[in-house]
Amino acid sequence: MNLGRKKIDWVSRFMSLLNRIEEEYSPKQPLKGFRIGMSIHLEAKTAYLAIILKKLGADVVVTGSNPLSTQDDVAEALKEYGLTVYAKRTSDESVYMANIRKVLETRPNLILDDGADLTVTAHTQMPEVLEGLKGVTEETTTGLRRLRALHKSGMLKVPVIAVNDAYTKYLFDNRYGTGQSTLESIMRNTNLSICGKTVVVCGYGWCGKGIAQRAKGLGARVIVTEVDPIKALEAVMEGFQVMPIKEAAKVGDIFITATGNKNVISVEEFLVMKNNAILANAGHFNVEIDIKALEELAVEKYEARPNVTGYVLENGNTLFLLAEGRLVNLAAADGHPVEIMDLSFAIQALSLIYLANNKLEVGVHPVPKEIDEWVARTKLDTLGVKIDHLTFEQKSYLESF
Amino acid sequence: MNLGRKKIDWVSRFMSLLNRIEEEYSPKQPLKGFRIGMSIHLEAKTAYLAIILKKLGADVVVTGSNPLSTQDDVAEALKEYGLTVYAKRTSDESVYMANIRKVLETRPNLILDDGADLTVTAHTQMPEVLEGLKGVTEETTTGLRRLRALHKSGMLKVPVIAVNDAYTKYLFDNRYGTGQSTLESIMRNTNLSICGKTVVVCGYGWCGKGIAQRAKGLGARVIVTEVDPIKALEAVMEGFQVMPIKEAAKVGDIFITATGNKNVISVEEFLVMKNNAILANAGHFNVEIDIKALEELAVEKYEARPNVTGYVLENGNTLFLLAEGRLVNLAAADGHPVEIMDLSFAIQALSLIYLANNKLEVGVHPVPKEIDEWVARTKLDTLGVKIDHLTFEQKSYLESF
Amino acid sequence: MNLGRKKIDWVSRFMSLLNRIEEEYSPKQPLKGFRIGMSIHLEAKTAYLAIILKKLGADVVVTGSNPLSTQDDVAEALKEYGLTVYAKRTSDESVYMANIRKVLETRPNLILDDGADLTVTAHTQMPEVLEGLKGVTEETTTGLRRLRALHKSGMLKVPVIAVNDAYTKYLFDNRYGTGQSTLESIMRNTNLSICGKTVVVCGYGWCGKGIAQRAKGLGARVIVTEVDPIKALEAVMEGFQVMPIKEAAKVGDIFITATGNKNVISVEEFLVMKNNAILANAGHFNVEIDIKALEELAVEKYEARPNVTGYVLENGNTLFLLAEGRLVNLAAADGHPVEIMDLSFAIQALSLIYLANNKLEVGVHPVPKEIDEWVARTKLDTLGVKIDHLTFEQKSYLESF
Amino acid sequence: MNLGRKKIDWVSRFMSLLNRIEEEYSPKQPLKGFRIGMSIHLEAKTAYLAIILKKLGADVVVTGSNPLSTQDDVAEALKEYGLTVYAKRTSDESVYMANIRKVLETRPNLILDDGADLTVTAHTQMPEVLEGLKGVTEETTTGLRRLRALHKSGMLKVPVIAVNDAYTKYLFDNRYGTGQSTLESIMRNTNLSICGKTVVVCGYGWCGKGIAQRAKGLGARVIVTEVDPIKALEAVMEGFQVMPIKEAAKVGDIFITATGNKNVISVEEFLVMKNNAILANAGHFNVEIDIKALEELAVEKYEARPNVTGYVLENGNTLFLLAEGRLVNLAAADGHPVEIMDLSFAIQALSLIYLANNKLEVGVHPVPKEIDEWVARTKLDTLGVKIDHLTFEQKSYLESF
Repeated sequence: MNLGRKKIDWVSRFMSLLNRIEEEYSPKQPLKGFRIGMSIHLEAKTAYLAIILKKLGADVVVTGSNPLSTQDDVAEALKEYGLTVYAKRTSDESVYMANIRKVLETRPNLILDDGADLTVTAHTQMPEVLEGLKGVTEETTTGLRRLRALHKSGMLKVPVIAVNDAYTKYLFDNRYGTGQSTLESIMRNTNLSICGKTVVVCGYGWCGKGIAQRAKGLGARVIVTEVDPIKALEAVMEGFQVMPIKEAAKVGDIFITATGNKNVISVEEFLVMKNNAILANAGHFNVEIDIKALEELAVEKYEARPNVTGYVLENGNTLFLLAEGRLVNLAAADGHPVEIMDLSFAIQALSLIYLANNKLEVGVHPVPKEIDEWVARTKLDTLGVKIDHLTFEQKSYLESF
Repeated sequence: MNLGRKKIDWVSRFMSLLNRIEEEYSPKQPLKGFRIGMSIHLEAKTAYLAIILKKLGADVVVTGSNPLSTQDDVAEALKEYGLTVYAKRTSDESVYMANIRKVLETRPNLILDDGADLTVTAHTQMPEVLEGLKGVTEETTTGLRRLRALHKSGMLKVPVIAVNDAYTKYLFDNRYGTGQSTLESIMRNTNLSICGKTVVVCGYGWCGKGIAQRAKGLGARVIVTEVDPIKALEAVMEGFQVMPIKEAAKVGDIFITATGNKNVISVEEFLVMKNNAILANAGHFNVEIDIKALEELAVEKYEARPNVTGYVLENGNTLFLLAEGRLVNLAAADGHPVEIMDLSFAIQALSLIYLANNKLEVGVHPVPKEIDEWVARTKLDTLGVKIDHLTFEQKSYLESF
Repeated sequence: MNLGRKKIDWVSRFMSLLNRIEEEYSPKQPLKGFRIGMSIHLEAKTAYLAIILKKLGADVVVTGSNPLSTQDDVAEALKEYGLTVYAKRTSDESVYMANIRKVLETRPNLILDDGADLTVTAHTQMPEVLEGLKGVTEETTTGLRRLRALHKSGMLKVPVIAVNDAYTKYLFDNRYGTGQSTLESIMRNTNLSICGKTVVVCGYGWCGKGIAQRAKGLGARVIVTEVDPIKALEAVMEGFQVMPIKEAAKVGDIFITATGNKNVISVEEFLVMKNNAILANAGHFNVEIDIKALEELAVEKYEARPNVTGYVLENGNTLFLLAEGRLVNLAAADGHPVEIMDLSFAIQALSLIYLANNKLEVGVHPVPKEIDEWVARTKLDTLGVKIDHLTFEQKSYLESF
Repeated sequence: MNLGRKKIDWVSRFMSLLNRIEEEYSPKQPLKGFRIGMSIHLEAKTAYLAIILKKLGADVVVTGSNPLSTQDDVAEALKEYGLTVYAKRTSDESVYMANIRKVLETRPNLILDDGADLTVTAHTQMPEVLEGLKGVTEETTTGLRRLRALHKSGMLKVPVIAVNDAYTKYLFDNRYGTGQSTLESIMRNTNLSICGKTVVVCGYGWCGKGIAQRAKGLGARVIVTEVDPIKALEAVMEGFQVMPIKEAAKVGDIFITATGNKNVISVEEFLVMKNNAILANAGHFNVEIDIKALEELAVEKYEARPNVTGYVLENGNTLFLLAEGRLVNLAAADGHPVEIMDLSFAIQALSLIYLANNKLEVGVHPVPKEIDEWVARTKLDTLGVKIDHLTFEQKSYLESF
């Protein structure tokens, strides 16, 4: 068995929800007759989702969702399973975008999007694709932000299910998934100690919360930067220091961005950072750290280790950027833990079945509550965890006043 | 200075938001001409809120919101400030309800409710009060549950502002307030170690989350019981064990209820608990632990320490109930920390001003977003914490697709 | 039953090791014929130890070990059990010292000391007592420091067992006992939030470690001050900030001393502290915070709440000192948790039996290893916790090279 | 620059203590004329230590200290620096032992040992080496156990400095080093979630403490197994469950051994483990998990992923062993974090200089206190952390009684 297949085989053991879905739905072939265009970080777990979708009857066409996050061995293996794959690990944005278009050219009936590149490209550049498109599921905070902006501008033409906003997605994937995988990638790629370090987390949304929690759990002193006063206050109450990035820049050893915004760390910060500071991004796009500015500031640039680029500044300090500023957990490691993605992908699969069987209005729709609860209940079941049930008396009490 | 005044004077130093509101609003007297009926756990912090409301122009009439949570020295002190007070620490429910009615008899224009006893009583027993009633603010999850049930049944006649649902309320008060004060009260009243103990937390809503977090922070092994699969899964992912209460009953040393429901711990559990198990409630009403059943089971009952009642069962085990099953943090200690209540009460004060100045429809309304953000921003300001601000470029980015 | 007896009855339920010792040893009366002079923080748990010692045959004479830590109701109750008690809660150091002398005048054969006041006084002022004195057990880090200094100066005349240095003492009592009880007392006496606060812990010995761990567990940002570089580095690695007290003074909200040294916080710090800063001591003697200097600096002094003294400085700031700078957990609350003291007092009881049955040389001796292990093993047993045992093969392996 | 050199160059930036030692000592060449035989886990950090020792004048001959922990690219790079290297990543124990002997054949004057293979082999098989051997420094708990057993049997012929027992070694390296690197390696090699898992830690010494702390910090429920009642009780008080390995075997998802003993997990446990359980060892030798028994039980064995071997049992369950049961952090990842090893290696370098300059008696000696404090003080200095200093008055106080 080649390494790509091994990786897929490995994750299949721990994706118990996808396995339950296969058991339950493959006899019914609910996706028969549907072509699904998928843009995802192509590694073993997403590959396994694609395989399950095929087993439910779909014709699946896959590409990456970020230039650096495709694992080539997995992409190859996926072809062996009979899927169409247009994906290659690359730093070349144009190759990446060409693949996005190739997927769209197959005229998918359903899109599974991660960051919204497929859907936005279809709307802005290939409107002919929209015709046969029954709906979209979107995985990320960033993708939903874009699709809502598209909708607000009046341009959205298809129904979207906001997978990211399901409880069993963002409470787990964004928090525990991003938390563990981001820190693991930083440790793996630098071999540096987290304890004894000052870790600056930019953004205290669900991803930032997870990162801060794990950095603390690994022994760091954590500083949070935020623009939202409510989130900032929450960080204070969790025992983190909160300060503007300009101040944090002077004291941080490791900087991690998870804001969904651009240029969160830029020239002003680079210039006051300590020598050997580490910069990593956990947000969807490689815009959070102002790489262009960093390139311009640097008098020298070199590969310090795989996935670690050193930028020597005029002041003599070297700053180290991980994974070229792309999401460090996917571009320089294996992404979220398997079981966490299993939760998210169960929602994806069930949402696609839901889209296939229902006609929704144009707009951004929440994941149906039943799907959310099925995922939580089934996950507890696979873990062997039992919970309580309301008695009749208790149900009545909750309705009384 | 008597002790009641000392207590009020003490908290006034740490309620920086109420002080800001006084500074800003007392010149304008925005509550002039309004009579506010308050039902609250009457201790120093709530007393200070009442005093501030009076300073903003209101005529304030105060009663408790739970028979055992009134501190008599504070109630006395409040009278010296010129407020009308109908409240006394008592175990006698009828005395308590009589005071609720006395407040309503003053025909308040606004109600500040905590648990909804004033509002429900007005609607169900004294409808004449509703006439002049411009609106209600409700502090708690439990109260809102009741008022929504009232509304669902078509009986609600006034607008309600859901103070509890403001971010700067439930994210802080329910979690950090309940968390600290519940554990502190248990430690204070038992002098027992939390570390090395198995603490069973019933309910993993925001209150339960806070209690579990603090129990863990104090060194306990924490078991969570839940009826909601999503919350149960969250607890699992935080490293807590989750099991049905019947199972947890056998292994727990300390049990804390925070479900908002009734008879969460009952006969079946009492009979399998370990000798010397401790029972405490952090929910609004004294119904979560089935006290009636416990009284019936017991062959002997005695006061083991102040606020600790021992129930000797036929099997020879003694179970200890704290604070007669009433909210242990208020009935047997001083309630939430001062600064946490300051957040909640700032929302209360600003919501009352909002109600006074606006005509809302009948129904349950969210706290206006501006109030929520003012509270967070001002709190950060009083803490000396600075945060970042979106640049023009970043704002545009967030609107792009 | 009066409150003192109730308190003793309560703790007796949770002191399972003392109960085991009573079961095992009271038939043999191993302390028959011995008079034990005890200086201890006189509250329910220490009272129960005294009662157990009496049940093992000893004639027990008790006094306090700190002016403010005696609980008068317990002292009264103890007399009812037939013990001789010279103790009263007082701020008057001379009353306290007179009681120390009264105990010595009874010519004890064994001394159970807590802070070494009995032993040092015997050596320096009442040498006649030393004649019949078979040995001393000392409970605290501070007491052992003094007795070792006494020994170093050639003046020590009796064998001392260093109870504090037993693993089952300092790893638990100093860390978990001090940690919980110090924070609980601060919360109880101030009703302030710990989360969102900056807590400065002076000293990172076992007591300081426990305090810092609990403050973190309650949500504080923790700053540590130290004089020992190894301990300071350990604090850094645990994610705490470390800085000189002069710097910490400017940013702290709550200051807790646990150094065993004097004037750790003094004029220079008082002058730069924030308004409303809280000062508490967890060390044995009331010398860690320079109270004399604070008294001199203050332009006004008042009781803000019971156990809280406000000092108004010329700069307009008020600093609040808890429990007059005496150990805040004992002078203003109920001291260490019951089960933790049970560990320490089991060592005390077994060490006294050991002293009674063996003739040791003058000097400071470790607690015999068997006692330490008996305590740990028996505690696990009472908790129902089972552990593994080395196989023969494993034992051999450990001796191989 | 090849990858081996890049790795060394990278770590050199973060090993500030070794750099300080080079600055201070290389002008004096204190190791001139000494041949040092090193047995170490050969990767970038140990390579940098070897380079520094050479810069201090020594002739350095290097081999691995565990068959699987040698990184071949680093070994190659080290030769370019002019060191003699006998090391290759291998599963073949005989190749490994041959290299040990090759180092000894160079007749080193000093030995830097990690696990004691060099020293034990010299004593038991090549006694001629002992003649010119001035002393040994030993890095690990396991190595010291062996050397103490050797000494107890009367066979030790040289002085040994117990590097492991220095505070700045075991408090940091064993705890924080092992803690982070073990968990990181497990995450890296499995891509599994730690949160939501039950992690069983066998052994609660300093390594086990670190592993348990990090597993908890990453969200796991942690179970500890122990043979020592005091350590077991400590684990209970930290909120961990403690139980015999036979019981833990049934509920664990991930098992990590850190006992320094053999066959801690064996047949009885394998047979009751859950399907897909993960087995990892963090102890020095690959004896803690009974691999021989596992091989015999298995009906099938396969490589599931790199560094992950699947063993299919007759009951249908598959157990996954990481890194062939060798220390998972070194055999399947990059070992301890750089800065942590910097502490340990500073002690190594200074202890070797000490051995070179002093004649010690045969036996196992502690690291001189000055070295320990220099390391802590200098580390704080490189971190920019300032601490307090005792005043004259405070020093006197500490000597008073």
